[in-house]
Amino acid sequence: MYYFDNAATTFPKPETVYDKVYEAMKEYGANPGRSGHKMALKANREVYDTRVLLSKFFNIKDAFNLIFTFNCTTALNMAIRGTLKEGDHVITTSMEHNSVLRPVKHLESLGVENTIVYADEDGYITKESIEKAIRTNTKMIAMTHVSNLTGTVMPIEEIGKLAKAKGILFLVDASQSAGVIPIDVDKMNIDFLAFPGHKGLLGPQGTGALFIRDGLNTDTIIQGGTGSESYSIYQPEIMPDKFESGTLNMPGIVGLKEGLNYILETGIENIRRKEEKLSCYFIEELRKIEGVRIYGPADAVQRAAVIPINILDMDSSEVSYILDDRYDICVRPGLHCAPLAHESIGTLEQGAVRFSFGPFNTEEEVEYSIRAIYEITKQI
Amino acid sequence: MYYFDNAATTFPKPETVYDKVYEAMKEYGANPGRSGHKMALKANREVYDTRVLLSKFFNIKDAFNLIFTFNCTTALNMAIRGTLKEGDHVITTSMEHNSVLRPVKHLESLGVENTIVYADEDGYITKESIEKAIRTNTKMIAMTHVSNLTGTVMPIEEIGKLAKAKGILFLVDASQSAGVIPIDVDKMNIDFLAFPGHKGLLGPQGTGALFIRDGLNTDTIIQGGTGSESYSIYQPEIMPDKFESGTLNMPGIVGLKEGLNYILETGIENIRRKEEKLSCYFIEELRKIEGVRIYGPADAVQRAAVIPINILDMDSSEVSYILDDRYDICVRPGLHCAPLAHESIGTLEQGAVRFSFGPFNTEEEVEYSIRAIYEITKQI
Repeated sequence: MYYFDNAATTFPKPETVYDKVYEAMKEYGANPGRSGHKMALKANREVYDTRVLLSKFFNIKDAFNLIFTFNCTTALNMAIRGTLKEGDHVITTSMEHNSVLRPVKHLESLGVENTIVYADEDGYITKESIEKAIRTNTKMIAMTHVSNLTGTVMPIEEIGKLAKAKGILFLVDASQSAGVIPIDVDKMNIDFLAFPGHKGLLGPQGTGALFIRDGLNTDTIIQGGTGSESYSIYQPEIMPDKFESGTLNMPGIVGLKEGLNYILETGIENIRRKEEKLSCYFIEELRKIEGVRIYGPADAVQRAAVIPINILDMDSSEVSYILDDRYDICVRPGLHCAPLAHESIGTLEQGAVRFSFGPFNTEEEVEYSIRAIYEITKQI
Repeated sequence: MYYFDNAATTFPKPETVYDKVYEAMKEYGANPGRSGHKMALKANREVYDTRVLLSKFFNIKDAFNLIFTFNCTTALNMAIRGTLKEGDHVITTSMEHNSVLRPVKHLESLGVENTIVYADEDGYITKESIEKAIRTNTKMIAMTHVSNLTGTVMPIEEIGKLAKAKGILFLVDASQSAGVIPIDVDKMNIDFLAFPGHKGLLGPQGTGALFIRDGLNTDTIIQGGTGSESYSIYQPEIMPDKFESGTLNMPGIVGLKEGLNYILETGIENIRRKEEKLSCYFIEELRKIEGVRIYGPADAVQRAAVIPINILDMDSSEVSYILDDRYDICVRPGLHCAPLAHESIGTLEQGAVRFSFGPFNTEEEVEYSIRAIYEITKQI
């Protein structure tokens, strides 16, 4: 089996991720942060350690400003729906996933205005195009770091500077970048950083997180038991409790720590270099095959290892089916929960066959997939 | 180690739960419901099978009306915040967990009225007291099936009948009952059933679910990618997608299926009988010890295996500390995220030491804890 669907979820994970999730469930599977007995404290400690490790990784000064969520979608909704109020304006882009577009469009019906800035045909968003969209009531810029369709890396640091200069909140969706491209919330002036645990960070599904910069007036969209201020029937304001209601996915969070540990041991720059090399090889070889169209930046340095292609005018689902059925190759076809991004690159009808590489893919696997694509073009 | 904190999360889980979570991560850890390759389809099938199995268990006719959530708190928020609008009135009770009380109190600030019906000193809520609270604008009755503080089993079927007769939506928090006491959403006239996966159902943390009866006009509080209607920047209305945005906790859901399988094989009535027997023995023996106060219904049949106690006027945290430190006994002290319930039973200051038994506790363990409690009363 050849797995090139790492943009959906990375697979495999490091072995220690599986082992530590198992151990957490079996050895100390108590509720973290509720009771005070030894096993609950151990569970709580593990969650805390993960919080601290992730915070260091993203240069978040106070680990309590990092909250754990179910997935990145929940984190994005918390930032968007919890912050924007009637009369506010939010700038977002055509390259966003529906996890940003759908809450933004929902808020439109509640009086929150929005501008969607369109990308060029490589999926790139310029600082200038964002700047042009700023209004007096612009409260937030909400955009992705790396497109989940084209892999395009956005000029986050430049746009962060712009946001800071204009006093606008900056929300970054790091779904495709966390664990793959270095992120520094201070240097990049990021006010909200939302990321999944199960993609580039190599943790299990059921994990995600949101960093909220100190002093922002964001409401929570979920209230409940926090284990703190239990005497009160109102949600506590203290962090991270305000945004962490109910039982956390403790074993998942433990697994996430192991995923991050693997990245720290391997070096994020080594993972990035390897994925760049695979992307580069893949793109270069596919360019030689007649009938194959590759989308996104031509240069692998300007993109993450997310590469959508099409073969002639074949439906992307058909190509993916053949890849799966005949070659045991896992990719994702169709629209990638990012309809306007498909508009930007012109694949709204055909969809795209998305190859996305992870740290465990090899050059041999990529070579095999190139051969498969070549054969498909020949057999039509 | 003696674990009596099953109301916080059950521990241990059946061995197969650990094994199947591990297998799901390692063998077919793809994103369910996104891509169409064999591994993604296998992941998707597992999620679907769990949905169907849970639906049968609660007599839910259409499995797509059951949605997976992060935890029960999220499920409760989805039902409460997604349904109640300005001008509506909701009836809830003093026995609720903060996961019900806090969203209800939050909605008060948005113009949703509420009445909190108080329990008697055993934590019992009568149908009559609910009936008295009904107003012309009452939209929902939101209440727990079993108190997480006193274990009191509420007359859900009676109140369900009342709700149906009056055309009021009925939301049941099954946090302490799902997997322990049989629930039939039709027979009990339940419109929303919220439950965690990691308590009585013996699944892993990071799992929960919400049943929403057909045809209810509930909004989602989270929007995002659903893998369906990807071309649209608006949330789809189809179930369960409307309420399931972003990547699900697939390995957790697989584990939940195994937890439920264990219950089905053992028989829920056998688990209930065993827990009743342990509770009965525990209560009877503690009654003989001077200085021990037991809260909740005297009869184990009228309660789940959740038994709060206090020793003389000792702070509940101190007692729990001694139990943990000297006896390796895990319980939960303090207030149990249910402040008004403590008011109802008169333990707002002292808190309570909560013993909660699970299907793997033994009579020997309970005997050991009785001896420990006896010794503590003697050493003061």
